Amino acid sequence: MKFNIAVLAGDGIGPEVTEQAIKALDAIADVFDHSFVYTNALVGACAIDQTGNPLPDETIEICKESDAVLFGAIGHPKYDNDPSAKVRPEQGLLKLRKSLGLFCNIRPVKAFDRLIDNSPLKREIISGTDISIYRELTGGIYFGDKHLSEDGQVATDGCSYSVEEISRITHLAFKEAQNRRKKITLVDKANVLETSRLWRKTVTEIAKDYADVELDFLFVDNAAMQMILNPSQFDVILTENLFGDIISDEASVIGGSIGLLASASVGSTVGMFEPIHGSFPQATGKNIANPLASILSAAMMLRHLDLHKEAAAIENAVEKSLELGITTGDINPKKPFTTAKVGDFIADFL
Amino acid sequence: MKFNIAVLAGDGIGPEVTEQAIKALDAIADVFDHSFVYTNALVGACAIDQTGNPLPDETIEICKESDAVLFGAIGHPKYDNDPSAKVRPEQGLLKLRKSLGLFCNIRPVKAFDRLIDNSPLKREIISGTDISIYRELTGGIYFGDKHLSEDGQVATDGCSYSVEEISRITHLAFKEAQNRRKKITLVDKANVLETSRLWRKTVTEIAKDYADVELDFLFVDNAAMQMILNPSQFDVILTENLFGDIISDEASVIGGSIGLLASASVGSTVGMFEPIHGSFPQATGKNIANPLASILSAAMMLRHLDLHKEAAAIENAVEKSLELGITTGDINPKKPFTTAKVGDFIADFL
Ligand SMILES: CC(C)[C@H](C(=O)O)[C@@H](O)C(=O)O
Ligand SMILES: CC(C)[C@H](C(=O)O)[C@@H](O)C(=O)O
Repeated sequence: MKFNIAVLAGDGIGPEVTEQAIKALDAIADVFDHSFVYTNALVGACAIDQTGNPLPDETIEICKESDAVLFGAIGHPKYDNDPSAKVRPEQGLLKLRKSLGLFCNIRPVKAFDRLIDNSPLKREIISGTDISIYRELTGGIYFGDKHLSEDGQVATDGCSYSVEEISRITHLAFKEAQNRRKKITLVDKANVLETSRLWRKTVTEIAKDYADVELDFLFVDNAAMQMILNPSQFDVILTENLFGDIISDEASVIGGSIGLLASASVGSTVGMFEPIHGSFPQATGKNIANPLASILSAAMMLRHLDLHKEAAAIENAVEKSLELGITTGDINPKKPFTTAKVGDFIADFL
Repeated sequence: MKFNIAVLAGDGIGPEVTEQAIKALDAIADVFDHSFVYTNALVGACAIDQTGNPLPDETIEICKESDAVLFGAIGHPKYDNDPSAKVRPEQGLLKLRKSLGLFCNIRPVKAFDRLIDNSPLKREIISGTDISIYRELTGGIYFGDKHLSEDGQVATDGCSYSVEEISRITHLAFKEAQNRRKKITLVDKANVLETSRLWRKTVTEIAKDYADVELDFLFVDNAAMQMILNPSQFDVILTENLFGDIISDEASVIGGSIGLLASASVGSTVGMFEPIHGSFPQATGKNIANPLASILSAAMMLRHLDLHKEAAAIENAVEKSLELGITTGDINPKKPFTTAKVGDFIADFL
């Protein structure tokens, strides 16, 4: 079969890790007799540098015409400490999510047994952890009205959610829970926020359609504690955009392997797949960045395209690279392999 | 000397732990020849039950006429899962902060060497951690306009900050840093939020007046990771209300001893002192709750009243109770002492 893949490698280590994912996909194409047609497109700081726009219209078009989007990373330090920058790489990512209707960000967090000892948490705390985080991605304070008063003295951000926005991701989360351990934890701040109260009300209502799934509530401050105290209590976590950003990043480090975590953003049509690590500017171009998260993102993409055997083959190859210690310095500091070498191993193994 | 103390014991385990703090204060009064005059006042769920109002005017008056406020905890599960409750205990706490102008919440997080092995984190990760979190407490999304559309379909929360609100706590944080390891980390989401960009701009400006203090920035999602990966990198953390709520709760569990963490809320006039654990409904009335955080809150209160020797005496007594294992089941599960017994020990030792 033939698939059109939009490749948005982006900034920092984005291009070098995405290159390894493409190697893996090419190997899959060979073995399983598919054809992946890649179209590169610009996003982020590199897009600003070349076009002045963090998300050129052409990129949106390319994504919309593709079967899936493979994303690298965006962001560059030169924008971070400049509060008055008019254009920022992140705007490209946010606009892309909105333009493609990617309202649901899915982040699996798993304690890979082989990597547990890399975790900052004790083995007995994280052992058995297997969480699927459903983060709403196109609403909330990320997309509310922003305003700075003319005299520069008062800034405001609006946060809003509609029943419709809450419902569509809630149904996806409940369906996921039905295929897992049948438990959902809604993370909110319903003791303070009106939007959180609407989440709680809407989700409680929808839960009635999924009688086999248990629904739990946790305030976000408590969730931030529970994630460290007892992460294996969670199955599916459902939450709004900003809380999802914080809680999923917190969760990403407890397994000891942020360089292995992939994510999917889905919604209306085409899905987007990306490693959850960022652009990691310090490592750019050094051939040391861990490509496994990007490679596993490609596997998630294949699953989304209903190529389950193909996805499993990649996951299996990643498992093998961990087993043999053919990994980058973040996992294997004593005898690190380069980014490209790890990518080559995966492709060869496939 | 004579001091008027407003005692707002509140809900859940609030009353029983506050009782132990009062025992300690009474012992201090004896030894150092002071007089503490306590006035009890209602707040939270118990205030709703008795008056229909989570913060009766009388309580505000009592606090305003006092030299300090000793606070227990508020909250009751019967309100948490009822998104349509018109009156909630938390409103009492929020209104109290606003009425007393308590714009600055200070939470020290320390790895007590004796308790490190209780931590979910590995010893080498948390060892040496000593953080002072400055959380803005009367602004941001907590106090913005809240709205639910008439048809119940759309909820909104407004978030706003002014240069003035940011400046006053920033100066306090820099002064604290000058007395510590001279480093401030501003936690924000300046790549997305207008309010965060105003924080970054204002704090950068103010930093020029404190040339001996190093200023760093961290996005809140990254901060949530760093708190687990490498907490000892932090000295003073400065942040807005909601991020402070999440990050300080996350930080509170890494030391392995949430039952020992006190906090101070200061601002215009009278200060308020409270344990950071909540009302812990499951333990209410069982005489098992750890009173040390409340007792250490009393010590923080004494420091704020310029009674430094007295505060040190309490801290010393707490250290002794840890050394001798005269502690509740959360710290000492094999041979737990009751809440009252721990309080008695501290008072006797003083
Ligand atoms: C880069 C930033 C805008 C983005 C977000 O906050 O959503 C990132 O942190 C993420 O989680 O994908
Ligand atoms: C009870 C709640 C409103 C409160 C807050 O979010 O500020 C609490 O979590 C705290 O941190 O003191």
